[in-house]
Amino acid sequence: MSSYVIAADIGGTNFRAATVSDKGEITERRDAPTPPGAGPEQLLEALAGLLETIAMAGKPARAACLAVPGLVNAMTGTIVIAPNVPGFRNLQLGPALEQRLGMPVVLENDASAAALGELRFGAARGVRHLVHITAGTGIGGGIIVDGRLYRGANGFAGEIGHIVMDPAGPVCNCGARGCLESLVSGVALATRARRLLANGVSPTLRDIVGVREPTGADLFAAAKAGDKHCEAEIRHAGHVLGLGIGSLVNVLNPEMVTLSGGMLVMGEMLLEPMHEGLRSMAYGSAGTVEVRITELADEPGLLGAAAVAFALLDIE
Amino acid sequence: MSSYVIAADIGGTNFRAATVSDKGEITERRDAPTPPGAGPEQLLEALAGLLETIAMAGKPARAACLAVPGLVNAMTGTIVIAPNVPGFRNLQLGPALEQRLGMPVVLENDASAAALGELRFGAARGVRHLVHITAGTGIGGGIIVDGRLYRGANGFAGEIGHIVMDPAGPVCNCGARGCLESLVSGVALATRARRLLANGVSPTLRDIVGVREPTGADLFAAAKAGDKHCEAEIRHAGHVLGLGIGSLVNVLNPEMVTLSGGMLVMGEMLLEPMHEGLRSMAYGSAGTVEVRITELADEPGLLGAAAVAFALLDIE
Repeated sequence: MSSYVIAADIGGTNFRAATVSDKGEITERRDAPTPPGAGPEQLLEALAGLLETIAMAGKPARAACLAVPGLVNAMTGTIVIAPNVPGFRNLQLGPALEQRLGMPVVLENDASAAALGELRFGAARGVRHLVHITAGTGIGGGIIVDGRLYRGANGFAGEIGHIVMDPAGPVCNCGARGCLESLVSGVALATRARRLLANGVSPTLRDIVGVREPTGADLFAAAKAGDKHCEAEIRHAGHVLGLGIGSLVNVLNPEMVTLSGGMLVMGEMLLEPMHEGLRSMAYGSAGTVEVRITELADEPGLLGAAAVAFALLDIE
Repeated sequence: MSSYVIAADIGGTNFRAATVSDKGEITERRDAPTPPGAGPEQLLEALAGLLETIAMAGKPARAACLAVPGLVNAMTGTIVIAPNVPGFRNLQLGPALEQRLGMPVVLENDASAAALGELRFGAARGVRHLVHITAGTGIGGGIIVDGRLYRGANGFAGEIGHIVMDPAGPVCNCGARGCLESLVSGVALATRARRLLANGVSPTLRDIVGVREPTGADLFAAAKAGDKHCEAEIRHAGHVLGLGIGSLVNVLNPEMVTLSGGMLVMGEMLLEPMHEGLRSMAYGSAGTVEVRITELADEPGLLGAAAVAFALLDIE
């Protein structure tokens, strides 16, 4: 007989929740818009309401997990900061949600949850030591040690986007200079696109963007349409991503590295230079580590949260 | 009653071995020169002879560990490569030494052993998640997760010297560009000293070095004597070391970072900019992590090896 948990994915625009079986099947699913400008109590109310709806409509669940895009203290059930979700700062949600739902509720960083999702349901089944990297608007990560999520001393481990790749590089969202995220991410590529537009060297990009603000997706569209400047930016980002992965491989010697996130639509234009960068860092294991693409492309957030909830129940 | 193990420290110029108690007391100690130009069998013979001498002269030991400056496969007892010890390449020593000594023998990377040494006998007693960094001729490291040495998939974890700090930086000994070790290490500072001598900007350094090849120690001596160029090089190295430690802290969220190695004689000239660099990387935990200097300054290699041997016996 199957077991079930409630999984929720907290985003800047939507709260999403589902009932998930121990085989990774989604049996019930609801979304709700993130309340704009809401205070802590309204956020808690909106979230609790959504989870209660799922709990009553779906299969009987035994635990719940919220995947949050930010720093989370899993021990106390507190969102320390989630930069893209207004109002989520030093907000202790765990205990109140446990009371409302009548089941154990755990909060986890979304990229760390995604790592456990790949391990339980995705590309990394059976792997002992894993590094998972989410490359989208920002760069996130999760670390699996001995088949379990490694959280570190305060629950903040896995902030892979914030390793320095260039001390003289651009200022990152975190305030430091030259972090991986400041050089390789949707935000970083949008910044490069703005520069190309200002320089006037990419008429294809100008045609695509018009008078809007450019995005990383625009840069990729122009590169696909043959713009060499845009392609060079994406290939450079791929190379730096490979150097960053190589650094992590030298430190952690994982069996496997898995990748997910919106940047993967760039395909080989990103991944080929990434593999070259990784191989150029080979020291010990960097040359032999297996790199795989997510197998949870549709629902990495929900399936990651579900994997954390099942780990909480010790259902293997 | 005390338990005892045999600890050995393999270096490019000396093999050193000792009997060590579970309190970290060294009760017997012998050194032997590393046989120059020796083949695998002569190296094994020299090492086995030294360990047998210690085993017979000292307290009854129950296990032995060799700390090796290179990549080690602890599972098979093989030295994969030890760049500074000629002849130590793809050399399986563990099983032969076990037979000669009649006790379990484990091989470990020296910086990883040093991490476990700090945990058992040194500055990190009682710490759950630790990053240990050795800053000497090269940069090494060891990672403790949940009170145990984290070895990774192949035993190569902890190669902290080979994270990229600058993709356009100098070529590292490992072949990659801009690794932490290529910017911050005795070797890196010697390279900077050669440049200052070639530029003719540091008469103090020239007086100290004379016609020899310069070392990192010469650079520090000139800096202490008031040479501003030399001091700037050391302060820059400290800053980059802090950025590297900050990167590792963001990825691993340890409770503590411990430091050992020859570069620590540079004191505050290195450590003050290191702390500044680390604080500038603060994301989540980087601002609050405790940084401590080794308490095993005299014998980090032997006490590290002893800690690994005790861990093998599960004597806590």
